[in-house]
Amino acid sequence: MEDQQVSTMEKTEFLYEGKAKKIYRTPDPGLYLVEYKDDATAFDGLKKGTIAGKGVVNNLVSAHLFQLLERHGVPTHFVELVSDREMVVRAVRIIALEIVVRNITAGSLAKRLGLEEGLVLDQPVVETYYKSDELHDPLINNDHIRLLNLAAPEEVEAMRAAALVVNEVLKEYLAGRGIDLVDFKLEFGRTLDDGRLVLADEISPDTCRLWDRDTKKKLDKDRFRRDLGGVEEAYAEIMRRLIR
Amino acid sequence: MEDQQVSTMEKTEFLYEGKAKKIYRTPDPGLYLVEYKDDATAFDGLKKGTIAGKGVVNNLVSAHLFQLLERHGVPTHFVELVSDREMVVRAVRIIALEIVVRNITAGSLAKRLGLEEGLVLDQPVVETYYKSDELHDPLINNDHIRLLNLAAPEEVEAMRAAALVVNEVLKEYLAGRGIDLVDFKLEFGRTLDDGRLVLADEISPDTCRLWDRDTKKKLDKDRFRRDLGGVEEAYAEIMRRLIR
Ligand SMILES: Nc1ncnc2c1ncn2[C@@H]1O[C@H](COP(=O)(O)OP(=O)(O)OP(=O)(O)O)[C@@H](O)[C@H]1O
Ligand SMILES: Nc1ncnc2c1ncn2[C@@H]1O[C@H](COP(=O)(O)OP(=O)(O)OP(=O)(O)O)[C@@H](O)[C@H]1O
Ligand SMILES: [Mg+2]
Ligand SMILES: [Mg+2]
Repeated sequence: MEDQQVSTMEKTEFLYEGKAKKIYRTPDPGLYLVEYKDDATAFDGLKKGTIAGKGVVNNLVSAHLFQLLERHGVPTHFVELVSDREMVVRAVRIIALEIVVRNITAGSLAKRLGLEEGLVLDQPVVETYYKSDELHDPLINNDHIRLLNLAAPEEVEAMRAAALVVNEVLKEYLAGRGIDLVDFKLEFGRTLDDGRLVLADEISPDTCRLWDRDTKKKLDKDRFRRDLGGVEEAYAEIMRRLIR
Repeated sequence: MEDQQVSTMEKTEFLYEGKAKKIYRTPDPGLYLVEYKDDATAFDGLKKGTIAGKGVVNNLVSAHLFQLLERHGVPTHFVELVSDREMVVRAVRIIALEIVVRNITAGSLAKRLGLEEGLVLDQPVVETYYKSDELHDPLINNDHIRLLNLAAPEEVEAMRAAALVVNEVLKEYLAGRGIDLVDFKLEFGRTLDDGRLVLADEISPDTCRLWDRDTKKKLDKDRFRRDLGGVEEAYAEIMRRLIR
């Protein structure tokens, strides 16, 4: 893919839409255009709202972090930014798994294991969830993945290994900007053109828990989930700290 | 332990009591006496009742299956039957894990993965649950086990391997008696005297799903859980088919 082609890339047919992004075909069947929205949802869509400017933050932050990860050898779907809210990505068939990596207890981990939030883990904890809205994204293990035929055992291992590399790279990068990487969720997919496994979806304050290192102030979607106020400001703060 | 000692074994101090069994010390600090009750609970103790004769069935069936497993090289806590409701077992420190093996979809697996009940699995599915009443026995993975320090990785592997052997032995044994082994839950512990890992707790219609091979009639605690009637009869039927 040459630069000129990408930069003139236009949306053609609208393909599908999630809670946070819209996906469009492009003239190249191997590439999609992703448009990031300001829509926010939580608790399986029970809570709905808008976070002004979130689409811009998540698009630019994701682009920035995908490029950082590529430089560290992690293959991603990212191709190029098109506008403040749009990026071109490799078209993938998304694997119906969410790979979650955790460095500090929070959210469902604290709840599941009866632990308080904020405990720093000795080693990262990796979890796999079945991407299924109707089933409320249940935690699953390798035997469930095999039973549902969601991914081959080698692919699961590759995703797990990649997720741990992503964790190391992001943790260090964010530490340099005064941010604790508490946890994050990744999605992977197989490219439509050559079936390669790549990191897809987004990496943003919607999909990471990010705490200020000194004050432990939450700078992520938990401000929206838990009605903590200052939601837009937190997203803006992350963009400010991460990009230039 | 010589036979005379065991057969004269008396309960001494009452130690603790669960929903289905009472544990007593014996004159030998390495041995406990287990008394099986008729009490039945379901849904985290929300549903309570009595199944007349269950204590006898579960004691005798467990004794029978523990002996079968010992003959197949699986170390268990079982020492000797003392009465219709009592057995002597090696005293163990129970590992706070439930190891579940499944051959056919049912119960929480069907619910978690959105599958209908009764699908025969290609390969057994093994699951680990954190034994914690307050947390409602959540499904956990190896990283959670490590984080909670519930068992060493080698022990987890040993339990998983033992559970699969138990599955093969029981599946074949039950098939010979016209019963499908749908799934079951195991508990392991480390013996107080020498720290060996042994299969503990019970193996009974309380802890297994057992379906008649031809009619698929449920012959287990699901009759109580789901108010299917004929509960006592089902337990009696299992004892009749399994023992002599
Ligand atoms: N490179 C890609 N190719 C194809 N689809 C992608 C790609 N990257 C992300 N997607 C998918 O785009 C869809 C829209 O994203 P969005 O985040 O809005 O979804 P969502 O509401 O979180 O729903 P979902 O539960 O499906 O993730 C998601 O299904 C996501 O998995
Ligand atoms: N060999 C053993 N040594 C010590 N404790 C044992 C042994 N075998 C089983 N136990 C424990 O005895 C207790 C009583 O059994 P019961 O089945 O009634 O418990 P329960 O109500 O199911 O509660 P739990 O959630 O603790 O299993 C359980 O905690 C069980 O793990
Ligand atoms: Mg999403
Ligand atoms: Mg029990």
